[in-house]
Parts: sequence; C-alpha cells; structure tokens
Amino acid sequence: MSENKNKVFFVMGVSGVGKSTVGELLGKELAIPYFDGDDFHPKENVEKMSKGEPLNDNDRLGWLKTLNILAKEQLKKNSCIIGCSALKNNYRDIITNGIEKHSKWIFLEGSFAVIMERIKNRSDHFMPTELLKSQFDILEPPKNAININISLNPKEIVSTIVNKLNQKSEFGLFGLGVMGKSLSRNLANNGFYISIFNRHVDGIEENVAVNFKNEYEELSAALPFDDIEAFVNSLQKPRKIMLMVNAGKITDRVIESIVPYLSEGDILIDGGNSNYNDTKIRHNYLKSHNIHFIGAGVSGGEEGALSGPSIMPGGDKDVYKIVQPFLEAIAAKDENKLPCCAYIGNDGSGHFVKMVHNGMEYVEMQLLAEVVGILMALGNNLDEIATILESWKEMADSYLLDITVKVLRKKEGNDWLVDKIIDKAGNKGTGNWATIATAQLGVPSTLIASALFARYISFYKEDRVELHKKYREATSKTKPNLLIDEVLKAYQFSRIINHQQGFKLISEASKFYEWGLNLSEIARIWTNGCIIKSTLMQELVETLKGNENLLMNEKFIQQIKELKPSITKVVSQCVLNELAIPCLSEAINFLNSHTTANSTANLIQAQRDYFGAHTYQRIDDDSENFYHTNWK
Amino acid sequence: MSENKNKVFFVMGVSGVGKSTVGELLGKELAIPYFDGDDFHPKENVEKMSKGEPLNDNDRLGWLKTLNILAKEQLKKNSCIIGCSALKNNYRDIITNGIEKHSKWIFLEGSFAVIMERIKNRSDHFMPTELLKSQFDILEPPKNAININISLNPKEIVSTIVNKLNQKSEFGLFGLGVMGKSLSRNLANNGFYISIFNRHVDGIEENVAVNFKNEYEELSAALPFDDIEAFVNSLQKPRKIMLMVNAGKITDRVIESIVPYLSEGDILIDGGNSNYNDTKIRHNYLKSHNIHFIGAGVSGGEEGALSGPSIMPGGDKDVYKIVQPFLEAIAAKDENKLPCCAYIGNDGSGHFVKMVHNGMEYVEMQLLAEVVGILMALGNNLDEIATILESWKEMADSYLLDITVKVLRKKEGNDWLVDKIIDKAGNKGTGNWATIATAQLGVPSTLIASALFARYISFYKEDRVELHKKYREATSKTKPNLLIDEVLKAYQFSRIINHQQGFKLISEASKFYEWGLNLSEIARIWTNGCIIKSTLMQELVETLKGNENLLMNEKFIQQIKELKPSITKVVSQCVLNELAIPCLSEAINFLNSHTTANSTANLIQAQRDYFGAHTYQRIDDDSENFYHTNWK
Repeated sequence: MSENKNKVFFVMGVSGVGKSTVGELLGKELAIPYFDGDDFHPKENVEKMSKGEPLNDNDRLGWLKTLNILAKEQLKKNSCIIGCSALKNNYRDIITNGIEKHSKWIFLEGSFAVIMERIKNRSDHFMPTELLKSQFDILEPPKNAININISLNPKEIVSTIVNKLNQKSEFGLFGLGVMGKSLSRNLANNGFYISIFNRHVDGIEENVAVNFKNEYEELSAALPFDDIEAFVNSLQKPRKIMLMVNAGKITDRVIESIVPYLSEGDILIDGGNSNYNDTKIRHNYLKSHNIHFIGAGVSGGEEGALSGPSIMPGGDKDVYKIVQPFLEAIAAKDENKLPCCAYIGNDGSGHFVKMVHNGMEYVEMQLLAEVVGILMALGNNLDEIATILESWKEMADSYLLDITVKVLRKKEGNDWLVDKIIDKAGNKGTGNWATIATAQLGVPSTLIASALFARYISFYKEDRVELHKKYREATSKTKPNLLIDEVLKAYQFSRIINHQQGFKLISEASKFYEWGLNLSEIARIWTNGCIIKSTLMQELVETLKGNENLLMNEKFIQQIKELKPSITKVVSQCVLNELAIPCLSEAINFLNSHTTANSTANLIQAQRDYFGAHTYQRIDDDSENFYHTNWK
Repeated sequence: MSENKNKVFFVMGVSGVGKSTVGELLGKELAIPYFDGDDFHPKENVEKMSKGEPLNDNDRLGWLKTLNILAKEQLKKNSCIIGCSALKNNYRDIITNGIEKHSKWIFLEGSFAVIMERIKNRSDHFMPTELLKSQFDILEPPKNAININISLNPKEIVSTIVNKLNQKSEFGLFGLGVMGKSLSRNLANNGFYISIFNRHVDGIEENVAVNFKNEYEELSAALPFDDIEAFVNSLQKPRKIMLMVNAGKITDRVIESIVPYLSEGDILIDGGNSNYNDTKIRHNYLKSHNIHFIGAGVSGGEEGALSGPSIMPGGDKDVYKIVQPFLEAIAAKDENKLPCCAYIGNDGSGHFVKMVHNGMEYVEMQLLAEVVGILMALGNNLDEIATILESWKEMADSYLLDITVKVLRKKEGNDWLVDKIIDKAGNKGTGNWATIATAQLGVPSTLIASALFARYISFYKEDRVELHKKYREATSKTKPNLLIDEVLKAYQFSRIINHQQGFKLISEASKFYEWGLNLSEIARIWTNGCIIKSTLMQELVETLKGNENLLMNEKFIQQIKELKPSITKVVSQCVLNELAIPCLSEAINFLNSHTTANSTANLIQAQRDYFGAHTYQRIDDDSENFYHTNWK
C-alpha cells in the first residue's frame, strides 16, 4: 500500500451522501485520521447554515483555505482523510492548491431522489429540499476521482474504495505521441485500467500524461506518470507495457531505461514501426533478461488507433495469449465482428508483415497520385477528379480512395488546399525496408521499389524545376488519348499486381524465416482498421485460402485479362505524352515479364560466363549441371 | 635463413658449367657438405664415360637412385649440396622422389659456345664436342629452379645463389580461384616476386599452388604454399597480401586465420567483391591489431585480371602508397597509358564504387537483353542481331556490346549456343547491395533495381512457363512497329540514364560518408580493364570534371533530347506488343519524373497528413514550416 502513503483522501459529494460515515470507517481501515470538513467552518457560516441559508462562494473561500492548510499540516506527518462537499472544480482547486500530487478525491454519488429519501430518514440532519437541489445544480463531478455509488452500504463502500486505492493498472502505455494517445483512449474506452507514461523534458514535454488524462473523460481512471519506476510499479504483474515511441535507437534507449524496473515474466510490446531485424534482436536480448517481447505492427493512423486499428503481433505464441485480450479488444472488427488482430508468427514476423503493409500502402498512394496526374492531363480540375474517383468506389473502393476524394475537395478559400502543398513526398523507413527486403529475399516486389523511388525523385524538387526548363519548356503539352474507364481499369490492374507482389513477399519471407504465416488471416486483419483496407482486400481473404500466388488464381486471371488492354493503352499513351507513371508502367512490365515463357535472360547468363566464368545451365540437361564455354 | 634448413640443394647443368666449383664454394658459404654426383657412379659408368661413350637412361637409373638415397640420408642430419647434371625432368623426379618439398634446384646455364670454350681451356677434363652436343639435345630446363648464368665468376655466382635463396617475395596472393590465378600471373608477368597460397582440402584442393606454379612459366620464381604460416613468412615486411576469396563470412574466416602470423604494419588487401559496410568494419577491426587494410574492387573478369583489370582501392591513403606500385603495375592502362587504378577514398569507398560498377553492369547487360528481345520480335535471327549490334559499335561501342556479338554468334553444331542456355540469370550480391544502397541513401538509381528484379523474375522460370500458358497461349504474337535505328537510340538513351544514375549514387554516397570521391577519375579508371568500359565512359572522363549530374550537362541534354522520341516510341510499342522491357521503360519514366516541375506528390503528402498527421510544407511559405490540416 505504498501508493497510499503521504496522501490526503478527500471524501466529497452533496449533503447526505454519507461523507462522515464513510470517512470515519475508511480512516479506521487505513489507520489514518479523519477530519470532517464541516467542523472547520467559521462561526458565520455555521450560523447561516443553521438558518437554512445557502453559503455563497465568498462565504466558502476562507473555509476552503483552512482545509487546504489542514491538509498540508497533516501531510507533514503522513496521510489523512478529509470529508467535504467540494462540489465545484474551483473549490477543489483551492483545497488541493500546492498538494495536487498528494490529493486523491473520492466522490460519493447518488440520485437526487435516493439522497432526499435518506436525509428524510435521518434524525440528526435537517435539509430543505431546495438546499439539496441547489447543491445538485452547482455540482461539477470531478474528472479524476474514485467514483462510488452510495447504493452500497458503508462497509461495502469502504471496501470498494480500498480495493480501488490498491488497484494496479492492467496495462501500461509508454509514449504519448499521436498513436500512443489514441491507443490509450481506445484501451480506456474498452474499460481497461491503464497507466500512461510520457517522459519529462523541461520546457518541452511537461506533465504530458497528467494533462492528457485530464483532457479526456474516458481517462478518469487512468494513472498518469512521468517517472518510469512509478509507472512500472503501478502495473499488475506480469506487467504488460506497450511502447509507442520512435523506431530505431530511441526504442533501444527506452527498453534500456525500463528493463531495470521490470520483473521476470513481464511483457514489453513494441507497437512502433520497428525494423523486423531489430525486433528479432530485441526479442533475444530481452529473453536473456527473462522479459517477454512482442513486436506488434499497428496500422490505422491516429483515427484507427482510437476507434480500432489493425494489429499484427509477432513473438512467442504463449506470450501473445497473455496480451491477446487487450489487443483484440482495441482492434478494429471485421465484417464478422472478429478482431482485426491475430497472432502473426515468431520473432520479427509482426513487424515484417506491417512493413509489407506499408510498402503496399506506398504503392496504393503512388497509383492514386499517378491516376490523378493522368486525369489532370485529360483536362479535369480537382473537383471533377474527386467526382470521378468517388464514382470508382463502386468498383474499387478503399480507404485511400475515400480520403483522396476528401483531400481533393478540401478548399482554402476558393483554392484547392492540395495545390498549396509542396510536391515532396516524405517517408519514414518502412517503404525503404520493404524494398531492401525484396532485394535481399530475391522476391521482386517491384512496385514497392517504384513507389519508394517515386517519393525520392519527388524530393529533388529544385532539380525537377530546373530540368523542366531545360527539357520541356520549348515543347507544348499534349493530351493522352484515353477514356476515364481505361484509367480506372489500369488502376485496378495495378492494384491487383501490388497485392500479388505484397503477399508473395510475405509468403516467401515466411518460407525463408520459417514463420508459417497465414496469408488469408493477414488479409482478414487488413480488411478493417488499417490504411490499405479495401473491397479488394475483402476479396483476398477467401482467395488467399487457396493458391498464394494471385497470378495463378482463375478469378484473378480473368480479371487481369479483362483489364490488360486498358493498362497497356494507358501506359503507352502516358509514355508518348511525357507523363511519369513509374508504378503503372512497372505493373504491366511485371506481368509481361512474368508471362514470358522464354526470355533473353539466357543472354545474360552467356555474358556472365564469357567474362566471369560464372557457368550456366542447359535446357537439354535436367540434372542441373553447370557448364562453362570458352566463347572466344 | 631458416628456409634453408633441412634442404637439399641440387646444382645441375650440362658438363663444364662448373657444378663442382660452385657446389664446393656454396657449401662453404652455407656451412653444409657438398657431394659431387659423379663420385657416386658405378664402375661401369665411369668406364663408359672415360671411353667417351655417352650413358643411356638405363645406365643412369641406378646412379640416380643412389643420389636419391644419399640426399635422404643427409636430410636426416641437416642440409647438403649435391652436384649432378640431371638434364631431364624424369632424372630429377627420380633423384627427388619422396623429398620433393625439401629439394631446391640450382640450374647453371650458358650457351653451347661459351661452355665449349671453357672446356677446351680446362686441363683436367676431356669432352668431345659430340658429347656436349648430345647433352644440350636432351636438356629439359627445370621449371622451378634458381637459374644462374655462368657468365658470372664463381664467387659472384655463389653470392647470387645465396641472395636468391634468402630472397623473400614482395607480394602475396591468397586464394587461387579464377581471379586469384589471373592476378598472380599478372603480378609475375610484371616481374614481381610473389608468394601464392591456396588452402589444402583433402581430395578436393590438393597442391593447388604448386600445380598452378608448374603450369605457367612466368611463375617459375613464385613460391607456392598451402601452409599459411610458411606463406606469410615467405614475404618481405611490411607484408602485402592480397586476398582473393569469396566475399562474406569466408573473408572473415580467412582474415582470422591469417592475422596471428602477421606483424605490425603488414597490409591485407581484400580484392574480392566485399560489401562496403563489411570493409569498414574489417578496416577498424584490423587497425586494432595494427594491421592495415585496403578494400580494393577489381573488375575485368578472368581475362581482365590477367591482362590488366580496373582496380578501385579504398582505405588509408598512406597505406595505399605502399601497395600502389604493385596495383598500378598490374592494372589496365587508359588511352594515355595511365593505370586504371587510383586511390578512391577512405574505408569502404573502393568496394562501394565497385558495387556501383557492378550495378551499372547489371543494367548494361539487361538493356542488351531487352534490345535483343526487341530485335527478335522484329523478326531477326541471332546472327542477324549480331550483325546489327556489331554495326552499333560505331555509335555505342562497349566491351559488353562486343562480347554480346560474340556470344550471339557462337554455334554448337548448327545451333546457336545461347539458345541452349536456360534463361535464369544468376547474381552474386553486388547488384542486390547496390539496390539496397540506393534505397538506404535515398538516391533513386532505379535502373539498377529494375535490372536486379529482372534477374529475379527470370529465376521464376517454372512460373513463367505456366503463366505464359494461362495468359498468352490464346493470343497471337504481334510485331512492334519499330525501326532498328529507333531501338539503337532507345538503347543509347537508357545507357545515358544508367550512367547518370550510377555516378549520382556515387556522388551522393561520397557526400554522405564524406569520402571526397573524384567522379572523373573513377570514370577514367573504368575506361579500360573493367566490364563496363565503353566509348561513353571515355566521354564521361571529361564531362564529369564539371557538373556531376549528367542530366544538367548541355551536351547530354542535346543527346537526350535527340534520343527521347525513339525511347518513347520503343517503350510504347513494346508495351502494346507485350514485350517485357523493365529497364528501357524505367529509363524514360525516370526522365519524365525528373523533368516534371510540379508533380502529384503533393497528393501523397496530403494523404499522409490525413491519416497519420505527418504534416506538409506549403508552396507559399519559404521558411520550411510544417503544417497540419484537419481534413474531415
């Protein structure tokens, strides 16, 4: 009960809720003194009240200050309990002035009718109806209190209070950035008792956790901290702490700072966008300290994190089971009301899958940017393009299509806001890592690389402006010969290729790392909560139960064949009209490469054997022997 | 002189060269006994010789065996010298049978005339002209001996022999694979005394160094080893050892195995295709052992390594100066006879530059493969294509174009050999690393990625065959509407983009790692010896003295503008006719992206700000502030 040391417990509520009874009983239970606030009223106030006249704020001021002094004096010794109506926020502010961190409010609440009935049955209290009514009128329920319903008897009430005072949080959230805040509120909204932590940085990050807690009603039971030890101690064992901090070195530093306070069997969950290789290293490092580690990809952005993100947890399966109730409760729900959170696989697999998710997200965004560029070249303004894209929802709905429509329509005065934005697309690592993974694993997820490089090229803004002058200023803009329906089909085609490549990358990584991933289940948890949720993803849940390679799936073969003439025309027209379409272009090249039974890669093998004696295999030798020729 | 312990020195040569005189003097100098082989002839042989009759092989057999026994007996005590004509290989084999490793031949040589003259002037020897002549007839000069010309006087001869016996090699080559062998011969051809090492693996790699030395005359002075300690001890200090072993863990293992025998200030040169990050780590690791390290990229394949490769050494500049005479001597020479080897920069820069070289090489090869594919689709057979490509040498000559012509023409019976090769293009890491570097450094060398991925896709041969059936079997092949000249221009265009991207990657890495690289000098050492040598590279030596970005260079702007209509047409035609052309396609997309002043990347920024509050910058705010909008 160390948390109850050096505290003042204020028992508050309207007249008749039983503050004295509860306060005295609680004092005995906690072995600390109880003071009835009413005993500290000046003579004038007592007289007024005995006449049945309500006190005004001026009457109360001196009294409240007296209680504040009382509390401070008692704190010098140890803890105490003070009973006092304290109905308004500013009364409570005066009472706890300078001792906020040592004050704990216990709010006894009940309905007007119940309390009136009680008062009538008491012999030692007289209370006119109007007086009670006036109290209810001015009552401002406290945000940060232990709320107790007076329907319980006094003993039960005290026992409930003691339990709540001793209550440790079920789940800790470390790091209150955009995502950490949303996840905290999501956890609290789901009824979990949580502790929340944010570091203290003088003048920059001060009282972040406390202020955040005070901002949202759902956090009234949350315990806020800026001290790591106290944060850790506030949690039930085995502790479950979700880290929502920046990926990379900061994550390592945070782990280093928290480990000394943890106990064997505690669980850290890294909910950041960490590199899957780092996750494996951290998993093993923490194992050596007997601390469990779950690397969980979390997608959904600020909004998804609050209302339900898609969560991709990786690590030891038995450890996952311990945190499962929390993660599944806060996750988005799919069309069957199942959580968009499922155990992914061992070590870094959760973060790997999240990385591929983000790579696919890069592609979906780049495709929309290319499509908008084409629609602009066809002469449409942004409102017209928004209307066109909105009409595509019937055939190709997705979260990203939806927000694109909204983004395009957003105005600033008479201007489109998007026109005011500099065309330099940022990136935070996951698209980069996905490209590296595709290179390392030998699995050509070419669209992710193209989308990443498109962002890189966008960053050379000054070069682009200068090169435009040098190469294009003299030439007049031409208009592609395209129907809007052809653009839609090219977009649909490329999205299929994107999803084929993404799931292929996951599938090959699963084989390489022996993760045993379930592609259909991954598609399912991506049907809601995450950034790339879409009707196509919905379709894939079923499709991916069969052949992992979408290109081999009969339904998709039909779709691709139908869409192919359009992508072919769109790409050729764009190239002829100088429109940069790296992802659309790569999508058709990828299919053409993949459907070429006999390519000229044999020439490359011959060249390699010529200059480097790298040897080659022959079409007329099934035994996979290697041959070398002296080509000169 | 530990190397002269437990050795038998055989002084050999025709009659009259002075074997006894030299042998006795040498014995005194080395303080070991000298035996005149003639003293061990059986009586019958002595009689025959005194009659002036030449001995036949049968006469000699017993005598040679006697000398073998003598040598073995002496070896039990220590060293000795044996004089003996031993004119034929098989005589020497008999004499050294079982003691090969302890035998050292000293061959006294002179012309017939000089020796005849000497014999005449001797009083104690009688030798008919015919007898000397018959000796010259059967003489097989030994391959692995110390050769001494008898024009010197006996004292000078002995002093020369002692010097040569004590001579340590100037340079060591570790690892006799394809490249290691060629470099060893190159070093020997340049007059360097070298030691060569190859490990011993029972039944797989046995006597590799000895056998290799015996195979090539230029290696007669080379010292062959399969024992690391002896190899290291055979080298002058500071030792200079070039490692030509597989990149990765094997290189680390080799370094571990060699370090215990090295002394402070010795220099290891890694001439393999190591990852530049590893090179930096090894550099620092060896520094902690006071061993120097040079990471040197070597390009040229088997042939270039022998006749002169392009060498890209990175590391400490003062260390490079010590190995400079060796590396520059064996390097190819540019058009001004300057070596195609120059100090690149610190730590991993040499291997980085080599990695980019290889990435560009991937692209050059892929472009040729795509071009050949187009020319095939236009209806040409491989001989016709070879003729077309040969005619391109005037406008776009390169080593790779040249070998492609040869490869295409190579027949096996009536069939083209290349048609027998499976179209699965292998890779050994550098293209992969170059793609990773381009992703990590944020520099979009998109063609390298495309060429790498094209090789990866080629590896899915079985999928391609199956997908061809599913997607293409029903459709008939169409023919692109293209002139051969347009294909050439598309090829030239894409090569310029490839070189622009490659040098840009080097330039950005140089800034990031603070290497201070000289792009023009890198182009210069790539004008000969290496796989991507070409007339274009020749041109770049001058161009890269100015603006590092080829796209900004006035001459190249003109070229690109002239070539652009062709690449545009080629790409659009190929897409329309289902030809996979990932690199050509990416080349034009790259230019179109780079010359787009205002792109739709602003939409991506808006999307990112929408779902992730990632913020954006505005065109009307130069102060680079970041903005966030509530888009809903």
